[in-house]
Amino acid sequence: MAAADSEFVLHCPVPADPGDRIVLAHGGGGKLSQRLFEHVFHPAFSNPLLDQRHDGAVLPAAAFQALADLAFSTDSYVVKPLVFPGGNIGDLAVHGTVNDLAMCGARPMYLSCAFILEEGLPVATLRAVVESMRRAAERAQVLLVTGDTKVVDYGKADGMFITTAGVGQVCHPVAASRIQPGDAIVVSGDLGAHGMAILSVREGLEFESPIVSDTAPLWPCVEALLKAHIDVHCLRDLTRGGLSSALNELAQTRGLIFQIEESLIPVTGPVRSACELFGLDPLYVANEGRFVAFLPAAEAQKAVDALKSLDVSQQATIIGFVSDEPGHSVHLRTATGGLRILQMLSGEQLPRIC
Amino acid sequence: MAAADSEFVLHCPVPADPGDRIVLAHGGGGKLSQRLFEHVFHPAFSNPLLDQRHDGAVLPAAAFQALADLAFSTDSYVVKPLVFPGGNIGDLAVHGTVNDLAMCGARPMYLSCAFILEEGLPVATLRAVVESMRRAAERAQVLLVTGDTKVVDYGKADGMFITTAGVGQVCHPVAASRIQPGDAIVVSGDLGAHGMAILSVREGLEFESPIVSDTAPLWPCVEALLKAHIDVHCLRDLTRGGLSSALNELAQTRGLIFQIEESLIPVTGPVRSACELFGLDPLYVANEGRFVAFLPAAEAQKAVDALKSLDVSQQATIIGFVSDEPGHSVHLRTATGGLRILQMLSGEQLPRIC
Repeated sequence: MAAADSEFVLHCPVPADPGDRIVLAHGGGGKLSQRLFEHVFHPAFSNPLLDQRHDGAVLPAAAFQALADLAFSTDSYVVKPLVFPGGNIGDLAVHGTVNDLAMCGARPMYLSCAFILEEGLPVATLRAVVESMRRAAERAQVLLVTGDTKVVDYGKADGMFITTAGVGQVCHPVAASRIQPGDAIVVSGDLGAHGMAILSVREGLEFESPIVSDTAPLWPCVEALLKAHIDVHCLRDLTRGGLSSALNELAQTRGLIFQIEESLIPVTGPVRSACELFGLDPLYVANEGRFVAFLPAAEAQKAVDALKSLDVSQQATIIGFVSDEPGHSVHLRTATGGLRILQMLSGEQLPRIC
Repeated sequence: MAAADSEFVLHCPVPADPGDRIVLAHGGGGKLSQRLFEHVFHPAFSNPLLDQRHDGAVLPAAAFQALADLAFSTDSYVVKPLVFPGGNIGDLAVHGTVNDLAMCGARPMYLSCAFILEEGLPVATLRAVVESMRRAAERAQVLLVTGDTKVVDYGKADGMFITTAGVGQVCHPVAASRIQPGDAIVVSGDLGAHGMAILSVREGLEFESPIVSDTAPLWPCVEALLKAHIDVHCLRDLTRGGLSSALNELAQTRGLIFQIEESLIPVTGPVRSACELFGLDPLYVANEGRFVAFLPAAEAQKAVDALKSLDVSQQATIIGFVSDEPGHSVHLRTATGGLRILQMLSGEQLPRIC
């Protein structure tokens, strides 16, 4: 035993901390993997479930309400650049997945997090991302309970990719099938800020008032609607493909026509200008903290009032209604009074937006 | 309406199928994303929960036993090459995560799956991987219920990375804290085949009898132990870092000494030869269908008999015991009668093994 201990102390070539740069051995399941966990992940995320340090986390039955359905979702995040105005890949990876749960009418509870790191990534970059994830998870009131780290050779990834999965408890039934003719269509705020924030930093542009990503957790908005006793029929966050793609997907799935008014859709001046500059349509630009809600028209104003009570959804507004005509498309009445059929996004406006 | 429909049919530049190669727009959330889902993912994985086609899946409360704890786990898979003797990244991504759940004493139930695809990847390669995942999920009796696809530009990934997360229901309490002095240490089969299968294909070596990965789902083994009424104390699969790293991690966590016998550890002739050729120690080589179990010594033979009833654990055997001396290390009695302290893996033997 003494021999083993002193060998460990005197001759072990493994540094006592994770070092300055990620190396392949950080993903090898040995001592450096352990150091990375102890020095980077554990200090940020420590909680009794993560600290079981098993192959997975055991979620206690007592945390869930009996007979409640669960929601389960996952997303990979490959955003480029890793840091952008208003956020970074870390808080994005928390918000994106808790929002997918919220869009199922579920209170987000637990997250898993899997990192794919490129050899050579500065450990300081990873630390900063992990710290953002910690803050985002705290704000969203979710526990990060299990994870994984893989390292790929230099040039075989792009800094870091993150995949989170989430488990939550369904509080209210929301589904495309619940959308009814006559439902009001409400958006939770101004559109296009996330996509244009990413694009402007990628292109090195500076605007008078810089565009900041809208990345934010959305469960508080859903909770506010439920607390106001709104019978929300369907929710969808407006990520890749923007408002147009989300509405088209739902219109096709549900077999209904949605009628919306261009003049009612909130887009800020800077986002509008940036979209004009790049020839983009804000209705197709990705958001990371905005959603659309379908709910009974009679409750629409109360719903908007409930949403306006929160910072993230202060600009909430009714943008249209579900028609009772048969069809499966989205009709936009333009600001000049014309009618435009909104299609789903055809190609790719902005790759690696999330 | 008529105008919109004919425009869609006549002028839409998006191909009706996903095409031959992955392009950025397959990850854009628009029409090509939808086509990829419809033509590749949906045919393989279709089930009522996935077919909700929401931002996440809703798992019905009725699927879970009341008051049962849940297990939750995730892993990213970055194995190189994508296809190897005995498996590919697709079945590996299913087996790895269901095995993490099984090692929590949980019956695997639901999987999420997030793909990061490199622009230019042949769609046929993705189809083949997805087909392997379908078969593996069917064999493991899990439903793939939610997923995500991101595409990164050519050169920014390595073909494809897959991240799965899993949810299961805990059937028996297993934890490092339950390991007791006197416990028998059982391995479920011969070691090192997965790592050496990957290495030999990477190095272009051919052996007389080719080494085939051990990748396999392990819940049937755990279920066999529980059906035989074995009070399993702890389970750990022997992935990255192999048997030595898994035992070291547990010995350190639990503060105990594990004594194992080299002559009792099953390693096949071809794996032993390949390890000698590459200067590797089979005790550190990754497995993807092998685990170690800690259980009461009095039940050890019954446990081994239960494991031997299944193909995947036919070579199950007792390899040692937990000592009642204080310590936190792993002692190997070598074939020649010497004592070797097994350390945790220091550097990285074989990167991108899983």
